Amino acid sequence: MNTIANDQLTVTNYQLPVTVLLLGFGAVHRHLVHILLSKADVLARDWGFILRVVGVADSGGALYHPAGFDLAGLLTHKETGYSVATFADGRRLPDALTLVQEADYDLVFAAMPLNLRDGEPGLSCVRAALRRGKAVVLADKGPLVHDYAGLQALARTYGGRLAFSATVCGGLPVLNLGRRDLVGATIHRFEGILNSTTNYILSRMRQGMAFAEALAEAQRRGIAEADPRLDLEGWDAAAKLVIIANAVLNVPARLADVTVEGITGLENASLADPRGVYRLVARAVRQSDGRYRLTVGPERLAPDHFLAGVDDWQMGVVFVTDIYEEIYLKIDEKGPLATAAAMMRDAVHSLVAHPPSSPVP
Amino acid sequence: MNTIANDQLTVTNYQLPVTVLLLGFGAVHRHLVHILLSKADVLARDWGFILRVVGVADSGGALYHPAGFDLAGLLTHKETGYSVATFADGRRLPDALTLVQEADYDLVFAAMPLNLRDGEPGLSCVRAALRRGKAVVLADKGPLVHDYAGLQALARTYGGRLAFSATVCGGLPVLNLGRRDLVGATIHRFEGILNSTTNYILSRMRQGMAFAEALAEAQRRGIAEADPRLDLEGWDAAAKLVIIANAVLNVPARLADVTVEGITGLENASLADPRGVYRLVARAVRQSDGRYRLTVGPERLAPDHFLAGVDDWQMGVVFVTDIYEEIYLKIDEKGPLATAAAMMRDAVHSLVAHPPSSPVP
Repeated sequence: MNTIANDQLTVTNYQLPVTVLLLGFGAVHRHLVHILLSKADVLARDWGFILRVVGVADSGGALYHPAGFDLAGLLTHKETGYSVATFADGRRLPDALTLVQEADYDLVFAAMPLNLRDGEPGLSCVRAALRRGKAVVLADKGPLVHDYAGLQALARTYGGRLAFSATVCGGLPVLNLGRRDLVGATIHRFEGILNSTTNYILSRMRQGMAFAEALAEAQRRGIAEADPRLDLEGWDAAAKLVIIANAVLNVPARLADVTVEGITGLENASLADPRGVYRLVARAVRQSDGRYRLTVGPERLAPDHFLAGVDDWQMGVVFVTDIYEEIYLKIDEKGPLATAAAMMRDAVHSLVAHPPSSPVP
Repeated sequence: MNTIANDQLTVTNYQLPVTVLLLGFGAVHRHLVHILLSKADVLARDWGFILRVVGVADSGGALYHPAGFDLAGLLTHKETGYSVATFADGRRLPDALTLVQEADYDLVFAAMPLNLRDGEPGLSCVRAALRRGKAVVLADKGPLVHDYAGLQALARTYGGRLAFSATVCGGLPVLNLGRRDLVGATIHRFEGILNSTTNYILSRMRQGMAFAEALAEAQRRGIAEADPRLDLEGWDAAAKLVIIANAVLNVPARLADVTVEGITGLENASLADPRGVYRLVARAVRQSDGRYRLTVGPERLAPDHFLAGVDDWQMGVVFVTDIYEEIYLKIDEKGPLATAAAMMRDAVHSLVAHPPSSPVP
């Protein structure tokens, strides 16, 4: 397997089996399963990991099968409309939390529906896995928004791993860049278009499309949250801003610290304004006391603003810093594929940093 | 000190002195010295490192002073027009290579003038430091272009470190993102504006400014290479493309593998063409056999192309991939500050991965 060492790859020749759980089986995890199937040879050749899915859970229950599931069959089963808990052999368990507590595994992928009220059931699952010293890879924002510091502390205490680059802008490594590549910087300002659903809706409404039609298209692509109000009222973007604040800006922000306004008050007529482009902008602005003011809301941006050019299915961010000057990123992400890829990236990084010690079966 | 562990910071309470050499003392290293002065408290607080410059070299010779130099005084001395070799106390040495071979130190920063003929004197210095198991942080492209694989092998063999994120697009972590964040991806196409001098010249000429005036402005800012033909004829961009090919695309490319055309044949009249924007574009396109076609040359880009919006002092790149879809990055970099910051970033990453074992003095 390879190990990352100061950006150098050190190739060795053994392959390590890694057992994983999939919590949630929506659009992101179905794409992740496709990636695990199509990239199995790349993961083995370049990184030395052979991932075996031994547990799955969705709202219908959980299933544990230590020999590993037939992933293609599992996909078909789910897409036919059944819960993963009723697929094939294995031990039926009541729910994801029981699976996390009772199964043998190395790593958990968690991509359950966004719950900003209390982060459950993801939060309890993540805590349970970290208490067992496991690696956890999150697409879920809820657990981080509710207990960022607590989860980090659990990972440290029990030697687990917590990775979550997929929670912000999907495949675009906003968090990785902010945490690893801006060493020593003071970030004066962060601004971003963090929610794809609202950005697509605003882009289309500007061209005259009806709100409901644009929303339906986002839902069809598997990008919209199950409850679209979380997107439309700005809460999904606010959750991502909270994660950036904690992980990159090193401030212990909570959702209540963000001033949030959604896009539901905007109308086609105002969006067609030729003097600017309306976007739902998430913003963290450093104050003179070193604290950050956090806001999410619709803004009319000048046409030459970088975020004005973040159109349709794109998401993008700007870091305004002292020593790295201004850095701009964006991604064109037309579905959940890149978010699933980011989870695979996080898994590889976690496994390289702390290879599991499972014996070869 | 902190250690990076799967993007988690583990804070401990000791501080580690780190002795460093500075090879070259042009614009980039003068900015690096400013950063070492202004960010010393941040490096100590967040990372636990106390950097002490114990050796310097420029074209006038080298100076070794184990107690550490007065950096502010050294800057003044150099800016008054003297060689760093004549500054204050210390042991005079004939050149950078002797310093690298004879001094006691933990890490070398190398930012000497670009030499694409044979990579010297940087190449010999880097090899010598790596053979001693030291950490090397490069802004120099020459050594990498001439012996990428050999330097990597030396680092592995002797347990040294080799970091070079500052060699491509300065502060923009193009190499870090390409090497760390696109795990498992097939990169179908890479394209970038990698040379700031030519991009500024083309941007200004489009608005009617004379070629010579724009070039003089780039030289005044310390961004142009000492020999401007390396910028204007496309060789600086080609060197960066070779580094990307080796480090990100995993192909053992050399400068001779790049088809290169510069901007010297372009005239103001054609640059003002309203149908598109002329940029000097570096490109790597994956062929059906898995190899990459590498080119650098002026192109008229459609006005809505991402790179058409990379203006003036900006540099930017596009990664077109399978599972991460399309990722766009750019930086607004008006001088050498962000390149110097990238060297500091590389130093911290190298030191975190392999802390030096120097005793506290």
